[in-house]
Amino acid sequence: MERVRTGISGLDEMLNGGFPKSHNVVVMGSFGTGKTTFGLQFLVQGLKEGEKGIFITLEEDEESIIQDGMAFGWDLKPDLDGKNLVIVKLEPTDALSTISRIKSDLPKFVKSFGASRIVVDSVSLLNMLFETEHEKRSNLFYLTQMIKETGATCLMTAEVSNDNSVASRDGLVEYTADGVVVLQYDEPPEKGEIRLTLRVVKMRRTNHSRRIKPYSISEGGIVVHAGAEVY
Amino acid sequence: MERVRTGISGLDEMLNGGFPKSHNVVVMGSFGTGKTTFGLQFLVQGLKEGEKGIFITLEEDEESIIQDGMAFGWDLKPDLDGKNLVIVKLEPTDALSTISRIKSDLPKFVKSFGASRIVVDSVSLLNMLFETEHEKRSNLFYLTQMIKETGATCLMTAEVSNDNSVASRDGLVEYTADGVVVLQYDEPPEKGEIRLTLRVVKMRRTNHSRRIKPYSISEGGIVVHAGAEVY
Amino acid sequence: MERVRTGISGLDEMLNGGFPKSHNVVVMGSFGTGKTTFGLQFLVQGLKEGEKGIFITLEEDEESIIQDGMAFGWDLKPDLDGKNLVIVKLEPTDALSTISRIKSDLPKFVKSFGASRIVVDSVSLLNMLFETEHEKRSNLFYLTQMIKETGATCLMTAEVSNDNSVASRDGLVEYTADGVVVLQYDEPPEKGEIRLTLRVVKMRRTNHSRRIKPYSISEGGIVVHAGAEVY
Amino acid sequence: MERVRTGISGLDEMLNGGFPKSHNVVVMGSFGTGKTTFGLQFLVQGLKEGEKGIFITLEEDEESIIQDGMAFGWDLKPDLDGKNLVIVKLEPTDALSTISRIKSDLPKFVKSFGASRIVVDSVSLLNMLFETEHEKRSNLFYLTQMIKETGATCLMTAEVSNDNSVASRDGLVEYTADGVVVLQYDEPPEKGEIRLTLRVVKMRRTNHSRRIKPYSISEGGIVVHAGAEVY
Amino acid sequence: MERVRTGISGLDEMLNGGFPKSHNVVVMGSFGTGKTTFGLQFLVQGLKEGEKGIFITLEEDEESIIQDGMAFGWDLKPDLDGKNLVIVKLEPTDALSTISRIKSDLPKFVKSFGASRIVVDSVSLLNMLFETEHEKRSNLFYLTQMIKETGATCLMTAEVSNDNSVASRDGLVEYTADGVVVLQYDEPPEKGEIRLTLRVVKMRRTNHSRRIKPYSISEGGIVVHAGAEVY
Amino acid sequence: MERVRTGISGLDEMLNGGFPKSHNVVVMGSFGTGKTTFGLQFLVQGLKEGEKGIFITLEEDEESIIQDGMAFGWDLKPDLDGKNLVIVKLEPTDALSTISRIKSDLPKFVKSFGASRIVVDSVSLLNMLFETEHEKRSNLFYLTQMIKETGATCLMTAEVSNDNSVASRDGLVEYTADGVVVLQYDEPPEKGEIRLTLRVVKMRRTNHSRRIKPYSISEGGIVVHAGAEVY
Repeated sequence: MERVRTGISGLDEMLNGGFPKSHNVVVMGSFGTGKTTFGLQFLVQGLKEGEKGIFITLEEDEESIIQDGMAFGWDLKPDLDGKNLVIVKLEPTDALSTISRIKSDLPKFVKSFGASRIVVDSVSLLNMLFETEHEKRSNLFYLTQMIKETGATCLMTAEVSNDNSVASRDGLVEYTADGVVVLQYDEPPEKGEIRLTLRVVKMRRTNHSRRIKPYSISEGGIVVHAGAEVY
Repeated sequence: MERVRTGISGLDEMLNGGFPKSHNVVVMGSFGTGKTTFGLQFLVQGLKEGEKGIFITLEEDEESIIQDGMAFGWDLKPDLDGKNLVIVKLEPTDALSTISRIKSDLPKFVKSFGASRIVVDSVSLLNMLFETEHEKRSNLFYLTQMIKETGATCLMTAEVSNDNSVASRDGLVEYTADGVVVLQYDEPPEKGEIRLTLRVVKMRRTNHSRRIKPYSISEGGIVVHAGAEVY
Repeated sequence: MERVRTGISGLDEMLNGGFPKSHNVVVMGSFGTGKTTFGLQFLVQGLKEGEKGIFITLEEDEESIIQDGMAFGWDLKPDLDGKNLVIVKLEPTDALSTISRIKSDLPKFVKSFGASRIVVDSVSLLNMLFETEHEKRSNLFYLTQMIKETGATCLMTAEVSNDNSVASRDGLVEYTADGVVVLQYDEPPEKGEIRLTLRVVKMRRTNHSRRIKPYSISEGGIVVHAGAEVY
Repeated sequence: MERVRTGISGLDEMLNGGFPKSHNVVVMGSFGTGKTTFGLQFLVQGLKEGEKGIFITLEEDEESIIQDGMAFGWDLKPDLDGKNLVIVKLEPTDALSTISRIKSDLPKFVKSFGASRIVVDSVSLLNMLFETEHEKRSNLFYLTQMIKETGATCLMTAEVSNDNSVASRDGLVEYTADGVVVLQYDEPPEKGEIRLTLRVVKMRRTNHSRRIKPYSISEGGIVVHAGAEVY
Repeated sequence: MERVRTGISGLDEMLNGGFPKSHNVVVMGSFGTGKTTFGLQFLVQGLKEGEKGIFITLEEDEESIIQDGMAFGWDLKPDLDGKNLVIVKLEPTDALSTISRIKSDLPKFVKSFGASRIVVDSVSLLNMLFETEHEKRSNLFYLTQMIKETGATCLMTAEVSNDNSVASRDGLVEYTADGVVVLQYDEPPEKGEIRLTLRVVKMRRTNHSRRIKPYSISEGGIVVHAGAEVY
Repeated sequence: MERVRTGISGLDEMLNGGFPKSHNVVVMGSFGTGKTTFGLQFLVQGLKEGEKGIFITLEEDEESIIQDGMAFGWDLKPDLDGKNLVIVKLEPTDALSTISRIKSDLPKFVKSFGASRIVVDSVSLLNMLFETEHEKRSNLFYLTQMIKETGATCLMTAEVSNDNSVASRDGLVEYTADGVVVLQYDEPPEKGEIRLTLRVVKMRRTNHSRRIKPYSISEGGIVVHAGAEVY
């Protein structure tokens, strides 16, 4: 099974080399756990390996994303200029046009652009654009299928339903995805410093570690301390 | 009482030989607990014993299911080609046609095909196709009856209502089923490695163990460590 | 006060001889706690004592009920043939006809048949047939009154609202009933084997034990270990 | 402040003699905690003291109430025949007529009958007759006012919102009432026997004990063990 | 900053002399924690200091309020007769007229009457008169503004959302108020006697103690044991 | 990355100098945790550094805000008169005009006025003006975008969903914001004094401490005790 390296030190080891190629993986966590950073780091790793990437965002505009990268020493501009990376900003104020745009353009675009990595940040905000449960579900299924057909490896960030739980806000994307990585924060009983932990809860068609590992968000991005235990 | 072996080492012992023949058994668990693997393994065991099987899926397409099997060393292609196994992919975007298709075709198909094992993965996603509580219930009852009339042994996977609980998302299928196997993950107090546990909560018309047993998803599929205790 | 023996060893002692005659008793528990077995055992005890019984079911068909009994060594067929026992299967797909059937026929039927024990398995599924809270309530009150007028002793099984709690799904039947027996499972802190426990929470017009007792579902049906403590 | 003895040994001491006269007191508890017994015992005490009483019930019919009393050695028939006690059975299947009956007849009836004690068993079931929150509230306020105008001391039983909590199902009656007595059951950590406890949470215009006391339902009715501690 | 003494011994010390003048303070607690007594004591203190007061009530009528005071040795009649105190009873059965009455009359009345202290008992019941969330909010904002314009110091009692929590039933009044005093009861682990505790959670424009203090409701009203710790 | 000092001693150190310039930061906490004080202190720090500020409030009027400042020794009047500070009071009783006013005027006003700091107190109350989830979301996105375009650094206060949790009432603003500071109170197990704690949960494009620090609201405003541990 071919692997796609996440570029996150420690995590690739837990996954025996990275995400399985063409998988649709959800990175789920509360705000402040580094989901956007995770997505960027995944794309930057692709860029390093000569792959092209697409970053679909509903939260921040292109300029903010560039600054996000800058903060970790990743200069995205050359790759944006060189057409190795595209940032697609969806406007959350117009549901219908957004849907149409995704529906009709994405597969063609991915193929013509030649992207092998896609990030959707976040699928929960995307889902909020739809009014009924039925629409949310239909579009989530449709989007998943679209992306699967492109053959690219996809990472979707998702917000959790409550404070720090192991369930997405919609309670669906974790079931339709091929893999789920959960980011959590951990308030130690004696207070002090909040610790961040990562676990791979699901990864279809591959063996994976089920250990809970501490991670940190440092100058170079996310680092999983695979050799350490949480306590 | 005739038994149908699940092919899951350790579980058949807990069940005195396997599921009672013609039972409708629900395998319930959170994402990442191996429900799809459980269903495939159950069918593969049938194939080994010369039985035919049907895999009804709403989550993955045929190609993905084949790869799922491959990851555990189960080559499904010969049996698909040899008409011992059929994978039926229901499109979650079209509720009415889906329902009609199940309603009218399933019993005839099961009989003409000669299947003695059926897997529905997952009954929770199937249920999401319906809008009202009333429709969900009616169709669940109808499906259960359809399958019962075929005489085949049926395994339905179901998602849990909250994070790791012992109740399905709809809170109904565990009551209408003949048997319920619950898959859970267990976060040890000192963190470290997530442990997977299995328990047989219900199995009509037969004695069964009520012990909670650890299991793992290894290269050959699910293995229940029937001789071990969780702690 | 005249007593009706449940036939469940250990429980009749806790109840000073059995259910008070003509009481309407709810047996409440999660799936897999043996509610259907409890109901059958109650009828079988009546048959042994020369009483007639009616089993109203929404979950299983007559053939399944016969097999349920068989698994515990109870051969229901002679009594079915001899018209000492009747199994009434309500179809959950037709609410209106079901209601009418119960409403108009039950009292007459009970009297002409001469039944002194009635089991409804389950009142929760019956309640799901109705759409509004108002309909559910009205019909529950009506059913209770119908049965009370027949003078028979009635046992209704009910599902619990959440996982293992001491409240029925509708939160009503435990208040209108004359008695409530709660079946629960108990996950010991060190995992291992799930233990089943029984308690009599309510029994109008009689003194009863309020002890929590372990029970098991063995070859001969339910046995309450009245002499043992849970821990 | 004039007192009305409840007739419950131990409780009258906690209340410095009984309920304040003309108070509207709610007795709140889960099923099986003895609310109906509490209400009957309160009326029986009045009968002993030569007072007249009215028992308004939505749960049981007159015959059942008589048997309820019989189980505790209270023969209600002489007082029913002698017009010292009236049992009013409201039919829960007819909301409108019920309301009208209460509205127009109660005050007149109480006065002409000369009742100084009224029991409503239960105000929660009465509330279920109304569809909207607004109707429930209006009628609860109206009923409270009606009864207050009669000058009689009133005891209303109420069901709790969840399993054993200190809040009524509607979350309102405990605020409008002059007093609240909470009945709870207590599952000791080592299982064994369920213990019943009573506390006086509210009693306007009087000092009262805030101790939690064990009680039991014995042959002579409810007895509060005022001298004992729960543990 | 000018202070308005609450008259509650111990609390005025925690508040450096009392509520800041013209503040709108919410006293929040479950039933039986003494909210009405708190409100009356606050008015009685004003009467002692020669101030006039208004008591707006939705729970009890004037006669009951007078008796409430009597129970603590406060004879309200002379001040009612002498026009130093007014009790306004709002009828909860007529929403529209109630609103209009508050809206149009209150400010004028407060000024002409010359009241410097206002009590609303309770703002939660007042809020129940309105059907929609929007109406509740609008009227709460409107009422708050009305009262603020009068320049009087206002105390509103509020019921808590669940059993003993630190949030009001509507979850709004604690945010719009200038101050919040929370009354709670505390069930000690070894059962025994329920203890009442008070904390000042919020008091704009002033420093205040954040200690949790035990209090009792004794013959002379509420006393905060400011020198004692809860445990 | 340019920093904007919050003026809160201890916090600027945790943030390596302050909020990143032009960030949109949410300060989230229950009532009584000092959110309004936090916002004022942030503006006052700007005034000290010669920057202009805008305070948009839905909770208090201008006069109250001035008094709020006075209580901490901040005399806002000279800056209000000198047009360095503007307090904008939105009327919560008129939803449509409020929205229009924000939408059309804010960006122009911020630019012409030359404000580099904006406070919205609170975004939760602002959100309550809208009826549907869809309107709330749209307007929150719109407001965020408006403010971002002005280039000013913005602080929004937000109320928490339940009692003291780490999630806003709407569950959205913490995801769209660039940073989140959480204020909580902490009830020590032995009761006594409530402790206030602060944590920086999220701060895009910068490294930040994840320690939980105690803080107090003293005469000079909020002080974070960065050198101390909570326990």
